[in-house]
Formats: sequence, structure tokens, C-alpha cells
Amino acid sequence: MHTDLVAALDIGGTKIAGALVDGHGRIQARAQRATPAREDGETVMRAVEGVLGELIASPLWDRATAVGIGSAGPVDASAGTVSPVNVPGWRDYPLVRRVRAAAGDLPVELIGDGVAITAAEHWQGAARGHDNALCMVVSTGVGGGLVLNGRLHPGPTGNAGHIGHISVDLDGDPCPCGARGCVERMASGPNIARRALDDGWRPGPDGDTSAAAVAAAARRGDPVAVASFERAAQALAAGIAATATLVEIDIAVIGGGVGKAGDVLFAPLRKALTEYATLSFVQRLAVVPAQMGTDAGLVGAAAAALSRTAGVTAAGV
Amino acid sequence: MHTDLVAALDIGGTKIAGALVDGHGRIQARAQRATPAREDGETVMRAVEGVLGELIASPLWDRATAVGIGSAGPVDASAGTVSPVNVPGWRDYPLVRRVRAAAGDLPVELIGDGVAITAAEHWQGAARGHDNALCMVVSTGVGGGLVLNGRLHPGPTGNAGHIGHISVDLDGDPCPCGARGCVERMASGPNIARRALDDGWRPGPDGDTSAAAVAAAARRGDPVAVASFERAAQALAAGIAATATLVEIDIAVIGGGVGKAGDVLFAPLRKALTEYATLSFVQRLAVVPAQMGTDAGLVGAAAAALSRTAGVTAAGV
Repeated sequence: MHTDLVAALDIGGTKIAGALVDGHGRIQARAQRATPAREDGETVMRAVEGVLGELIASPLWDRATAVGIGSAGPVDASAGTVSPVNVPGWRDYPLVRRVRAAAGDLPVELIGDGVAITAAEHWQGAARGHDNALCMVVSTGVGGGLVLNGRLHPGPTGNAGHIGHISVDLDGDPCPCGARGCVERMASGPNIARRALDDGWRPGPDGDTSAAAVAAAARRGDPVAVASFERAAQALAAGIAATATLVEIDIAVIGGGVGKAGDVLFAPLRKALTEYATLSFVQRLAVVPAQMGTDAGLVGAAAAALSRTAGVTAAGV
Repeated sequence: MHTDLVAALDIGGTKIAGALVDGHGRIQARAQRATPAREDGETVMRAVEGVLGELIASPLWDRATAVGIGSAGPVDASAGTVSPVNVPGWRDYPLVRRVRAAAGDLPVELIGDGVAITAAEHWQGAARGHDNALCMVVSTGVGGGLVLNGRLHPGPTGNAGHIGHISVDLDGDPCPCGARGCVERMASGPNIARRALDDGWRPGPDGDTSAAAVAAAARRGDPVAVASFERAAQALAAGIAATATLVEIDIAVIGGGVGKAGDVLFAPLRKALTEYATLSFVQRLAVVPAQMGTDAGLVGAAAAALSRTAGVTAAGV
């Protein structure tokens, strides 16, 4: 099958990655810059243009038919703007217009980073072949995205699937978002570590107080570390069950650093799911680790661009 | 515009209603039987066949092109079966096959009753013109349905939008569904009344302890009655905010007996929504009362049937 290429941008608070991606999700060219996240908006944009410039300099660029952008959120796909929490120089920043201008007026598709990861897992990873899926990143924050009826569901503004900020504990701890008891407030890596420390867990001689260190302690049987992961699993289970009950998904895919904790997370998560996913139509829900690696954002941005490109079908994305 | 008719069935624990409905949602013929809910499955089916028989006897029947069924849940649209909680004689009951046989092999579309109400509000009621909406019934139970991307989203089994059984209080009171802190457990009419009684509210001389009586007391300023509605509003707000954060809706429509409480419910609900719907893309969410009356289930079942009938477009349903 002959397929054209698309350009993909993965824009986060740490790095701006770019690639030319083919119709099978293979990366054919790459570029990357650090995100000057503390600088003004134009300086950040120059870094994006630098990445794009490297791609444009590639002999493959002439085959690119569209640009897909997965950006740290919130984004507003309907307005073509982004306001990433960790890039204060960009507020309602007209990223789509600026990228289109820099990329020779190619069509530009913007989605949130959680939606991009989901597009990647659906196209190439653990959600392949599933028509209704939730994909999550559990890391410093908790994000996600949805596949419904066999297609990515970005929502009108490109932010759908934002499971980290649904409340599963309406009287719970205040979340920086302004609500209480959000999934992220209970299940993110920093909150797993904070809860373990609050409850008396102490790090080893290396002083590592990360969630990964708590996971290692849990694997050795430390009861406080185990309990902190169990509480995170309970919050994730309540959020995943809510999602399944609302839209009917049959698989939840969990990536990100906390998702790598293995059985320390997945065993209590699967147990808690039986307690919260109770209705008949959600009882067969599977929960599995993500399969895509660090290129997930790029591959997912490419999938979003391909899905809007006439004549190219990105495996149902 | 010439439009054909569809037959609609609204099957609940109390009554089985049937109608022939035109392409504008107007009811052209009706039939109704009480649901023999405590009898065996075949007896219940004979009541359905009785309703269908009356419709078939109508001179308009020849114009009917499909049958839409909205049934008390859970349903399984993929298997064509229903297992209504309040009709114990029907468990995995092959309703679609039986109705198709009784209706001269017309195509049959099955959805849950919350989904049917949603189809009706989107076609003819308060969600008209909204491409992304949540419609709810807050009554003895709490049900609902979703419109996404301009279309009804029943989900693979026809149960999507089941907001009554998402947990917003993961350590909360046990719910009959097996989970804890479900929206229904905090916000249904019986739970509003129970909480008011538990907290010291006492009914008037008529002894009426319904949620409507609590609403009347709240309107007169009874602080315990007010507080019970505020707590229900908080649970509804957390559930609605979760839905908006997950799938991006711009309107939530609330019907059912509790939905008729007016400002006693809607004032604290709108306030609580500002506390739980915090992300930029959900802050413009509107919450409004339902507009459809007691025919909502029939009109919604008709909309579902029309949406599957070639050549007939039911206003984007």
C-alpha cells in the first residue's frame, strides 16, 4: 500500500519532538528541541519552528500531506489554540495558525496529549482492534483519551478523556484544578509518594522518594507502600468504572511511569474494578499496560493527521 | 416532507406503552397495557404482543418501517436481550427476536430507557441543536443517556450514559448495585427523602415523606430539607462534571420527578457545578430542566428506529 507521510509534533513542558510518520506509523525522520517553557510565547514558538524547519529540510518533506499536533493541555481544537499549564507564555496561543504558516499551509490537526497517546495505542498498541477504549497516562499527572465506536473521540475542543480530573471523592482533598477528590489527586506518582511518606514510609539510603521507590518498597512487602498503591488503584478503578458505565468501553490501557509499577498497581486495580464496575455491561472490562513507548505522542499526532487526510486510512483511527 | 412511520415501544416496570410515530415525532396511534411485572416471562411478553396487536390493527400500520424499543435496563442491544431489574421474569430475554416475529419481521432497534429519553430530548426537547449532551432522569432511580458528535451514543449494548451508577464518593454508602457512593445512592428521590428523615425532617399532617414533600419543605426554608437537596445537587454536579470532563458535553438536561423540584434543586446544582466542572473546556456547561413529558420514552424509541431507517433522517438523531 502506498501511503503519504504526515508531520507530527509532540509538544510538552520539557521537550518539543517532531517527526515525519508514514501510513504504518513508522517514523521516517525526527527532530527535537528542549521546550523553553519559562520564556515568552514567541521564544517557545521559535523552538517549534526550529523543529519544523529540520523536518522541512528533509528530502521526505515533499510527501507530507498534513501536520498533526499533540499538545500539553488544555487545548482548544475548535479555536486552534493551546494554554499548556506548564508553558505560561502560551495562553490561548494560536498554535494551529502559526504551525500552518510555518508548514506551507498544510492542514493542521490539533489534539490534547492524552488524546494523542490514545490514538497511538489504538493504532499500534494495546487498544488495537478495540472499538471502545480508554487509554490513560498515570505519571506526574493523570491524563487520558477515548476511542468510541472505533474512532478517536477528541471532543469539540480536543480534551475529551480527561479522567485525571473527574472527582471520585466529592468530599476529598482539594485538587489544584479547584475540585476535590480528583483521580489525579489520589493516583498520580507524586500523590502516591506523598501519601506513603505521610503514612510513615521512609526511603532507603539513596533518599529516593519517587513513586518508583514506593513501588519497589511495595514489591518488598512494605505495608505502607502497598497501601498507598492500593488507594491509588481504588481511585483509578472508580474512575475507569465511571468511564465504562458512561460510554461503554471494553478495555482500559494504562501507561506512564506509575503504569510501569506492574502487579503492585494492576493486582489491586483489577480487584477494585470488581467493586466499582458492577453493572452487567461493564463487568468484562479488561485493564492492561500500555504498549507504546516514548514515541506514543508523535505516533498519535500522526494518526490524528492521517485520519483527516483523504484517501489514507490509519487503521480505523 | 413525506415520512414513513415507525412503531415505538416503551417498556417499564409499571406499563408497556406503544405508538405509531411519524418523522416529526408526532404520535399517530397509541396502545397501552399494565406490565404484569411479577408474572413469568411469557405472560409479560403476551402483554407486549397485546400492545403490538393493537398497533398492527391500525390502518396506519402498513406505513410502519421499523420498530424502536426503549426498555428498562439493563438491556443488551448486541444480543437483543433485556433483563429489567423490576421484571424478574425476563432475564436475558430475547425481546428483539420476539418483537420482530410479532411485527412481521420489521427491523427492530433496542435501547435502554435512559438512552430513549435522551433521543427524545435531542430530537424534540431541551437538547435540540446540541451536538454533545447528557440527558438524565432523576426519579426513583437515576438514569441517563448521551448525545456525542450530534448522534445518540447508546454504546455497544445500549446502556451508555448510566450516570446513576458512577461512584462520586468511593468510600461512601453501599449502593444496591454493589458499588459505593453512586450518584443514584445520593440523589434519587427515595434517597433525598431518606436523608432528610435521618437528619430530623418530619412530614406534615398528611404523612407524605416523598422527595416532592421534602422539596416543598425546602421551598418553605426548612434547613434539613434544603440540605438534603444540596447534597443531592452536589452528587449530581460531580457526576455531570465527570461526564463533561470525560466526553465534552455542553448541556445537561434533567428530567424525572426530582428534576421537577425547580430552584430547590437547580440553584445548588448550578453552584456545585462551578466547584466540580473546573477545567476550561467544561466551564460553559449549561444545566436545564427536561422538556419532554410522559411520551419521552415513546418518542425516543421512535427516534432510534428512524435513525436506522434508510431515507429518513430524524433531525440528526
